[in-house]
Amino acid sequence: MPKMVDHDAQRRAIASAAIDAIDEAGLDGARLKDVAAAAQVTTGAVTHYFDGKDAVLMAAHEEIMRRILDRQSDPLRGDLGEIAAAFLPLDDASRREWRVWLAFCGRAVVNEDLRARHKAYYRAIVERVAERLVAAQRHRVSMARARRQADAVIAAIDGVGFRATLEPEDWPPARQRAVLRMLLEPALEEDEIV
Amino acid sequence: MPKMVDHDAQRRAIASAAIDAIDEAGLDGARLKDVAAAAQVTTGAVTHYFDGKDAVLMAAHEEIMRRILDRQSDPLRGDLGEIAAAFLPLDDASRREWRVWLAFCGRAVVNEDLRARHKAYYRAIVERVAERLVAAQRHRVSMARARRQADAVIAAIDGVGFRATLEPEDWPPARQRAVLRMLLEPALEEDEIV
Repeated sequence: MPKMVDHDAQRRAIASAAIDAIDEAGLDGARLKDVAAAAQVTTGAVTHYFDGKDAVLMAAHEEIMRRILDRQSDPLRGDLGEIAAAFLPLDDASRREWRVWLAFCGRAVVNEDLRARHKAYYRAIVERVAERLVAAQRHRVSMARARRQADAVIAAIDGVGFRATLEPEDWPPARQRAVLRMLLEPALEEDEIV
Repeated sequence: MPKMVDHDAQRRAIASAAIDAIDEAGLDGARLKDVAAAAQVTTGAVTHYFDGKDAVLMAAHEEIMRRILDRQSDPLRGDLGEIAAAFLPLDDASRREWRVWLAFCGRAVVNEDLRARHKAYYRAIVERVAERLVAAQRHRVSMARARRQADAVIAAIDGVGFRATLEPEDWPPARQRAVLRMLLEPALEEDEIV
């Protein structure tokens, strides 16, 4: 039987390993051999799938975006406060994603390609959240209005998650949730979303 | 007359020049000679005041923190929404500070020293904002309650400023202010702050 390797699955496994390597050593410090070690493959295997370190980093960025969007497409149950809270860095896996995500945001400041990817990602997130908000408001609001609400919801998540990522010991889940609720509850209450 | 150079003023001028150099080339890309050129001094003058590039970067970080805190100590007039909005990246100077600040945050993820400085800075900001909130609520709230409100105000500013920094062309001042107001107005209205 021929050896069948799922090309996309292998690329994604390496991208996931790159997230771990970046979390360990930073965007600059992470080396291809660290990524290979984390993926339990040879460095040659990494360079077989990717054209060097920058390509691996971009794949790691895409993998994080995909994970967050995948989480968004889960059945969105509960009130909006709970749904929004689910995106905060509340457990080890999401804390790691936030750390690596923040490292990419810092680099995006001077990297136009990363900024373009970042923007496309936020556009997709805004659409998802806005659709959810339209449904929650029983289609009594326009998508344009819901997009503005989504901007506010996403800014609240980013602001809380950003702080919790850099001060993890002082921002346990309960504190993150409480501050997010302070921002979202009154803003959305009038529309009967929370 | 002997040449009198104000040591602190000179260090601060170099730190300011470093902010410009970092904004141009990123934390990794900025070289001492770029900092020197921006400060209109020799590279030797830079190394006279600082022990190498890391020291210059730390001074740039401190300079940004100081600028933001200095802005906070201006007489805080107007409603809280206006005061909070003043911290957003609304003009060229503040947009530059946000970009460099975000670059530092990205690096803080893997740099314990930067994280400690970041945390001390946020603690100072929270105190300033909380004092303002206590005064605005005519001392009818405790500092503990006001600190929680300050956490929310700062998270809203960070969330909006973060997005506007990475998508400047789509986030003109009016959009930033509108989203900030959506988050802050209802949250603080009940306490008669805005």
